[in-house]
Amino acid sequence: MKTSRRSLTILAMALVCILTFCVKASQAGAEPKIRHFVAFAFKDSASPEQRDSVVKAFLELRKTVPEVQSIEAGPNNSPEHLNKGLTHAFLVTFASEKDRDTYLTHPEHEKFKKFALPFVSDALVIDFSGKK
Amino acid sequence: MKTSRRSLTILAMALVCILTFCVKASQAGAEPKIRHFVAFAFKDSASPEQRDSVVKAFLELRKTVPEVQSIEAGPNNSPEHLNKGLTHAFLVTFASEKDRDTYLTHPEHEKFKKFALPFVSDALVIDFSGKK
Repeated sequence: MKTSRRSLTILAMALVCILTFCVKASQAGAEPKIRHFVAFAFKDSASPEQRDSVVKAFLELRKTVPEVQSIEAGPNNSPEHLNKGLTHAFLVTFASEKDRDTYLTHPEHEKFKKFALPFVSDALVIDFSGKK
Repeated sequence: MKTSRRSLTILAMALVCILTFCVKASQAGAEPKIRHFVAFAFKDSASPEQRDSVVKAFLELRKTVPEVQSIEAGPNNSPEHLNKGLTHAFLVTFASEKDRDTYLTHPEHEKFKKFALPFVSDALVIDFSGKK
């Protein structure tokens, strides 16, 4: 009897954990996020070190702007040649349009733009709700 | 003694669950995914219904191409006017470059391109590794 009660307790705990995990996972999938997609082309005069410093400074914004949920970044690796000369991609995620708007005028974002501008020849920005 | 043993079992179970959740969450964050970003501009002649049908047909690819992990889609809502006339965004996620390549030449993707082309005036494609 003691053993079966303990088994029951363990089973109940396991079920609660599984349910919590499932609810969390489904919430993560359903959450309406704002995706802020940015792509840059660099000036020919920008050295590899200067390009790297721009990418690093962009990624720093996830630490300095609290509204930023995440930033993914990488060089374009599409084989389709439809990138309009843009070579570096950044995907910034926000919880809401309000958070995105706060980011756009945030002093740290302004500081980044001033730093990056001398090295960037072209920029694209497209935001969307990220609904699935 | 019985009670403390049960408490210990419950605590151990809870700890295992929390650890599992943490490991899963960190793995999800570290997973190297391929992000395939696509943006379209539609021809002036394309009706709202035709535009909707293109978006729907794109989203269908997550069902018909097994390599597609997810597709997020939405109209551009950036206030920055840096979208180069592109009005609709799609973010397709793959587990690897190999899966992305399989998608690019998949018959269902080819079928979609043939269907969409008459309504689309411009397209941008940028892929990146999505490393954080």
